[in-house]
Amino acid sequence: MERTQIARIYADQETFGGKEVTVCGWARTIRDMKTFGFIELNDGSCFKNLQVVMEAEGLENFKDIARQNVGAALVVTGTVVLTPEAKQPLEVKAASIQVEGPSSPDYPLQKKRHSVEFLRTIQHLRPRTNLFSAAFRVRSAAAYAIHNFFQERGFVYVHTPIITASDCEGAGEMFRVTTLNPNDPPRTAEGVVDCAQDFFGKAASLTVSGQLNAENFAMAFGDVYTFGPTFRAEKSNTQRHAAEFWMIEPEMAFCDLAGDMDVAEAMIKSVITEVMAKCPDEMEFFNSFVDKGLKERLEHVASSAFGRVSYTEAIEILEKSGQKFEYPVSWGCDLQTEHERYLTEQHFKKPVFVTDYPKEIKAFYMRANDDGKTVAAADCLVPGIGEIIGGSQREERLDLLEARIRELGMDPADYWWYLDLRRYGSCKHAGFGLGFERLVMYLTGISNIRDVLPHPRTVGSADF
Amino acid sequence: MERTQIARIYADQETFGGKEVTVCGWARTIRDMKTFGFIELNDGSCFKNLQVVMEAEGLENFKDIARQNVGAALVVTGTVVLTPEAKQPLEVKAASIQVEGPSSPDYPLQKKRHSVEFLRTIQHLRPRTNLFSAAFRVRSAAAYAIHNFFQERGFVYVHTPIITASDCEGAGEMFRVTTLNPNDPPRTAEGVVDCAQDFFGKAASLTVSGQLNAENFAMAFGDVYTFGPTFRAEKSNTQRHAAEFWMIEPEMAFCDLAGDMDVAEAMIKSVITEVMAKCPDEMEFFNSFVDKGLKERLEHVASSAFGRVSYTEAIEILEKSGQKFEYPVSWGCDLQTEHERYLTEQHFKKPVFVTDYPKEIKAFYMRANDDGKTVAAADCLVPGIGEIIGGSQREERLDLLEARIRELGMDPADYWWYLDLRRYGSCKHAGFGLGFERLVMYLTGISNIRDVLPHPRTVGSADF
Repeated sequence: MERTQIARIYADQETFGGKEVTVCGWARTIRDMKTFGFIELNDGSCFKNLQVVMEAEGLENFKDIARQNVGAALVVTGTVVLTPEAKQPLEVKAASIQVEGPSSPDYPLQKKRHSVEFLRTIQHLRPRTNLFSAAFRVRSAAAYAIHNFFQERGFVYVHTPIITASDCEGAGEMFRVTTLNPNDPPRTAEGVVDCAQDFFGKAASLTVSGQLNAENFAMAFGDVYTFGPTFRAEKSNTQRHAAEFWMIEPEMAFCDLAGDMDVAEAMIKSVITEVMAKCPDEMEFFNSFVDKGLKERLEHVASSAFGRVSYTEAIEILEKSGQKFEYPVSWGCDLQTEHERYLTEQHFKKPVFVTDYPKEIKAFYMRANDDGKTVAAADCLVPGIGEIIGGSQREERLDLLEARIRELGMDPADYWWYLDLRRYGSCKHAGFGLGFERLVMYLTGISNIRDVLPHPRTVGSADF
Repeated sequence: MERTQIARIYADQETFGGKEVTVCGWARTIRDMKTFGFIELNDGSCFKNLQVVMEAEGLENFKDIARQNVGAALVVTGTVVLTPEAKQPLEVKAASIQVEGPSSPDYPLQKKRHSVEFLRTIQHLRPRTNLFSAAFRVRSAAAYAIHNFFQERGFVYVHTPIITASDCEGAGEMFRVTTLNPNDPPRTAEGVVDCAQDFFGKAASLTVSGQLNAENFAMAFGDVYTFGPTFRAEKSNTQRHAAEFWMIEPEMAFCDLAGDMDVAEAMIKSVITEVMAKCPDEMEFFNSFVDKGLKERLEHVASSAFGRVSYTEAIEILEKSGQKFEYPVSWGCDLQTEHERYLTEQHFKKPVFVTDYPKEIKAFYMRANDDGKTVAAADCLVPGIGEIIGGSQREERLDLLEARIRELGMDPADYWWYLDLRRYGSCKHAGFGLGFERLVMYLTGISNIRDVLPHPRTVGSADF
């Protein structure tokens, strides 16, 4: 008989009530009451378990089933019984139960609370816990919500390259990618490693951003987005940094900074709304056990306008705040997480875009404002996280872009194709980068990036 | 006035007819007839251009517009006029046209046919051609169709890691990932590079497959899929191989090989149907200019059952075929592309699954069949491409899997977590890998993988 996902039964109780089904999953608990018993079965299709009722009389292998260990894989065929009076809306009365794979008494996920630190050492099993089952189902729903948002608006999804031979992206330290023998690489006459003999004929690295490539496509398709892995070889061992993480980078032609913020705000609201609708049990769980105010905060965010404040105004707010910050505040300084969180958590009490940063602390490709001091950047700060989005209008004027590249001591020749976009049908355009893990942290209340990545890669750690 | 995507106007002609719109795009052609003129404007939101009509009398900058070069970025405000009698269903009568960014006479994409080889040297501009505009729009639609297929069926999307410290995936040569100084890396007392001092505390590489990690999640969520980049450091300079490509890897618990093939077949049909519905103009273009029989073939594939044949039977078919193959055929040999294409193109004339291969030519994790010689593998071959999917039922029996690992001279300790899945609630499960670029080639008729990747990475080439 065909396997039915438990999620389908809960979603369509009317249809399934009284029907026979086969469900396959893993026992979360097994209670043996001698003449009858209960199994809480979870198949991962939804957060909820399914209660399976078995009776000794009707089930010839009752004793064998009743002594199975937690974690056993079971195939249950039985009748769906609606139980509107009970705690759970339905249960399955088992006609037959087969042990597909037993578990053992040393199964690490016994029914007790485990620390997230311990669970990180058994990343292959932690998706079977309530916390990680919910986290990764929300992660999946959020990823799909992002695709839905952009595809419905006619954006083209572009897979920008992961391996890059340009170190021009300028967003952070990079991992090198090579096939040369590390112990004895070929060397040039000068004695340095001869990258010309490497796989790509030159030095190559892992991308830190797909933006420059995405601009190539925005100048053809108008509206595009990337959604792929990006890398930072920074040895920051914090709760918010991973060496490998996923990023979404929309890029829009004929769009200015205000339009950029409109899209970013609409996207975040759309993802919140879709995830809350699709994962109500998971969100209830996070709200109860991880972050008490989560649902209320997300509902508030989804329904109210984000703040917008210039960097210059933000600095004034911080200076007047009377707060003691570890890093002092003055015009020209980069905003630290403590500043960002003060602005979004204490002052605005909602997500806020900070715009028009000093050009010295922002990337070369951002559009110069007329004041000569600032660029058309917009970072989105959210409570509990700080920066979740970094965006800008891009410099579309060839002369200004080239001058800025030279001013920073870089070589325009390295940017020939990027500059070409300004030679042939240039237009105002803008985009942003959303760190996907930070979004999942924001949606779940989970405070460590290691717990929203299936198998996190951080400095000193690449297990599993 | 707000920008309207040209695709929206074509999609909803009734609503837009007679209305004023602002469209923004790039001029494909500009024809100056002295008192009036025509612009073919493309904004990348759809394959079709929009015809803009301008009259010298109504447009004060008519002369300036008329002398713009191909590729100029224009902002056009005007009235949508339905033209049911004309070649195109509608046009826009311009009230104002602004040059957002001019082009120049040396713009490489003049209105003539360019070779794909030349266009690969201007990858930043080639998305503005008909061929690549269509290819990357189909690529985006196909990616979304895959997400739709799996999400609608309750599969959880898992981002398996890109950087891996295990070289246990066994699917091909790997790129190393490092932050050590290549010229003077730290060395151990024995004089070899000291990987313990590298970023992750050990040697790391780019993944060749997310499967083993995906199994961790299938054992919790039942049905999961990955969709991410994978890498091969093989110096194959062919039309079908790239060093970096995207792969989809579904993994299903409580599923056998027949179920695996059912999902693979349904997925391919679903993607074909969705892409043909969403990209009719693009498919028409490919059918006319790239591959004459494309649409008919795809429609046939979407509506008929795939073939299924055992490897042993396939070998018999090949032996009896009377064909001269470069590589001789006998039981035990790996199927070469020429064999695969004979089977799917000449013999079956449709996609066909070849199942139950000799265990010697397949990976260690595939489930042993009772005959002691073969494993429960299933590769899907399609006309024009050859292998597009490689799948198998996985060995879920701890003793057999451990024995096979030892038999191949590998160390079970390296697979501790993978083996754990067989210790705690093991169950039959199966999955497959779909090479996304091969799917896009199959959907478009494009014969070189370099022309379906936004910025291809192949041996000796990582430009842009």
